[in-house]
Amino acid sequence: MTLHVDLFSQEMKEFAHHKRQFLEIGRNAGRFPSAVARQGHDGTDVEISVWCSNDYLGMGQNPSVIEAMKEAIDAFGAGSGGSRNIGGTNHYHVLLEKELAAFHGKEAALLFSSGYTANDGALSVLAGRMPGTIVYSDALNHASIIDGLRHSGAQKRIFRHNDVAHLEELIAADPADRPKLIVLESVYSMSGDIAPLAEIADIAKRYGASTFLDEVHAVGMYGPEGAGIAAREGIADDFTVIMGTLAKGFGTAGGYIAGPAALVDAVRSFSRSFIFTTSLPPAIAAGALAGVRHLRSSDEERDRLRDNAQLLHRLLDERNIPFVSPMSHIVSVFVGDDSLCRKASEFLLQRHGIYVQAINAPSVKAGEEILRVAPSATHTSSDVEKFAEALDGIWQELDIPRTEHTRGN
Amino acid sequence: MTLHVDLFSQEMKEFAHHKRQFLEIGRNAGRFPSAVARQGHDGTDVEISVWCSNDYLGMGQNPSVIEAMKEAIDAFGAGSGGSRNIGGTNHYHVLLEKELAAFHGKEAALLFSSGYTANDGALSVLAGRMPGTIVYSDALNHASIIDGLRHSGAQKRIFRHNDVAHLEELIAADPADRPKLIVLESVYSMSGDIAPLAEIADIAKRYGASTFLDEVHAVGMYGPEGAGIAAREGIADDFTVIMGTLAKGFGTAGGYIAGPAALVDAVRSFSRSFIFTTSLPPAIAAGALAGVRHLRSSDEERDRLRDNAQLLHRLLDERNIPFVSPMSHIVSVFVGDDSLCRKASEFLLQRHGIYVQAINAPSVKAGEEILRVAPSATHTSSDVEKFAEALDGIWQELDIPRTEHTRGN
Ligand SMILES: Cc1ncc(COP(=O)(O)O)c(C=O)c1O
Ligand SMILES: Cc1ncc(COP(=O)(O)O)c(C=O)c1O
Repeated sequence: MTLHVDLFSQEMKEFAHHKRQFLEIGRNAGRFPSAVARQGHDGTDVEISVWCSNDYLGMGQNPSVIEAMKEAIDAFGAGSGGSRNIGGTNHYHVLLEKELAAFHGKEAALLFSSGYTANDGALSVLAGRMPGTIVYSDALNHASIIDGLRHSGAQKRIFRHNDVAHLEELIAADPADRPKLIVLESVYSMSGDIAPLAEIADIAKRYGASTFLDEVHAVGMYGPEGAGIAAREGIADDFTVIMGTLAKGFGTAGGYIAGPAALVDAVRSFSRSFIFTTSLPPAIAAGALAGVRHLRSSDEERDRLRDNAQLLHRLLDERNIPFVSPMSHIVSVFVGDDSLCRKASEFLLQRHGIYVQAINAPSVKAGEEILRVAPSATHTSSDVEKFAEALDGIWQELDIPRTEHTRGN
Repeated sequence: MTLHVDLFSQEMKEFAHHKRQFLEIGRNAGRFPSAVARQGHDGTDVEISVWCSNDYLGMGQNPSVIEAMKEAIDAFGAGSGGSRNIGGTNHYHVLLEKELAAFHGKEAALLFSSGYTANDGALSVLAGRMPGTIVYSDALNHASIIDGLRHSGAQKRIFRHNDVAHLEELIAADPADRPKLIVLESVYSMSGDIAPLAEIADIAKRYGASTFLDEVHAVGMYGPEGAGIAAREGIADDFTVIMGTLAKGFGTAGGYIAGPAALVDAVRSFSRSFIFTTSLPPAIAAGALAGVRHLRSSDEERDRLRDNAQLLHRLLDERNIPFVSPMSHIVSVFVGDDSLCRKASEFLLQRHGIYVQAINAPSVKAGEEILRVAPSATHTSSDVEKFAEALDGIWQELDIPRTEHTRGN
């Protein structure tokens, strides 16, 4: 008899050397990026500065978000009590969906418990329900996109990351009458570079493809009112569906799609990750709504994030510390070695109280390990300078490879 | 050129006649089961009584839950800011996992954003990662279980609902040395009946199968400290993994598994729905923790739920109104016709201010439409009596079939 527990015990023993370590932190509301980390087995707390949060704009501590959440808890209680179809549709879900549709200039929007389930649930339906659909998916698309497409069962072609010529080559080779869907991100989560949206929209038009654009790392941060990169380029209309999260720029939790009413209705009616689960707590929807409204009318947070990102790009360039792309606030500092990457992260924490998680496989390919640095709107420029200095010292100490010459810009 | 939007527009037009209608409600914290419903296009609010919430014990308005959430928001802000691996592990996640492990008497527990992603993510790994695993799955298992098993790619045998002989027949026919996993619920979500846990545990032992038990509609409600049906029968140890939600009995949101450390580690390390998403907001984890702690030390809510359920069973029996099972607080009143079921739900709302959602396909099979009634611990016995009277009147008016004789008990 082969027991699961025995099999898994064996496997986990072998796996233990690269088991993931989670740093337990308490981000101090009102004082973020400062946080408290619980270290070691003695459980002592140390004060740290977080440099890898996705709460890029500090909206998780924005007073309007905090207040909206507490008010909603007082009014409606803790959870929603049901799925959207069965007793769990609250006023805030409806308001937030209306706000998100308007935000992206689309007919309708639909909320999910997370960005993960939004991609999984929406793509299963949009790619899977129309027989014959062929999907064109960027090679660096996020796990949640990959899972949604896999679960759709649709035929899939992978185009090389941001490679428009390759995309066109693939799409041109397929029959004109097959329904086609191009799936991509705007700001890529692990590389921080940005897709050539206008060129991809152009291909979509010429070949009659629909488009699904994940703006998870862009909504709130880029474009007028924070509506994302497509909005910044003035081509949001060219993307059939825009997908986003409320857990990063907007500081709360939940995911969504926005698009034509018929598509959103189809997802609402058939998406299993939407139907068969409890809806978001009303307080989370209320907080997200406050966050979206705040960022639609305030540029301050976006401006500070951009300034911090640009300063960090310059300081790293000056020190010949390699990073993948200067196109966004996601600054993936390249290490390229599993154990060096862990060490760099450890040293930053122990010596400088700086928390940057080492990103190893499977989140990136082996040999492409990075420190995924995310300055936030709440860092000061002096924080950024200290951070670059600290990194420089560790590059020295661990003898991590540098770039040969500075980036030409 | 075949555009997705055109295809879906066509399909959604055809589908429109059985499109799902969501009632938008605001459950009044502190006064649940009372709620406010937004009706019609004029947006007027009417006061209603909710009879289909999964907040069975009213924990969504429990003062300790509410206070814990507000305190956590003040301390840590709105969202977690990251995935569990990358900056998003808060003290409350760790505390809650420890509490849940102790609650179920298991070595470890792992939190997910929802019960849906817990089943999907855990079963993908537990059924999928050990080559050769055969899964035995109850025919009425929830969509999230079906999806997890489908995504695992494991070979699957479906046994007839609660049919122990059929399960044994299937398992006996398979090679002894193949790893085996039996997957079932304790209280079934749509029928309200309860699995013969001891007999299934016995089969598992005899054939060396691991077991995965979804106690989503039982945790908080049954057993000592609310630890579920397996705990009530004194056989929680016989189930390898117990899975639950924090969104029903505990009134908040989130899902979890509890089991042997090696299995939980495997899920933590490989489950995509765990790894590639933002962790639960600290305030949700804090509220859930308060809810679990409360229900471990208080029987009051459980007793009231049981009394209400038993009273309702008796009153419906007296009126020959058919329901699927008298084994739990889920009272699935049988209608068996799509349009009658909708009408009964509408009449209850319009004439009596009672909200019970009609459950139609795909949540149940066509021809098995039900009103899924869930009394809660917050209803009074006079509420239950009024409810039974209202139902009786509607059965009369719509001429919905009754049982031929009362249930023998
Ligand atoms: C590109 C991308 N899409 C989707 C998601 C999922 O979003 P969420 O964290 O809200 O589940 C993430 C990150 O988690 C992401 O990086
Ligand atoms: C049996 C069962 N398992 C899992 C789930 C999913 O739980 P959650 O609502 O927390 O996603 C549900 C209901 O939604 C359910 O009925």
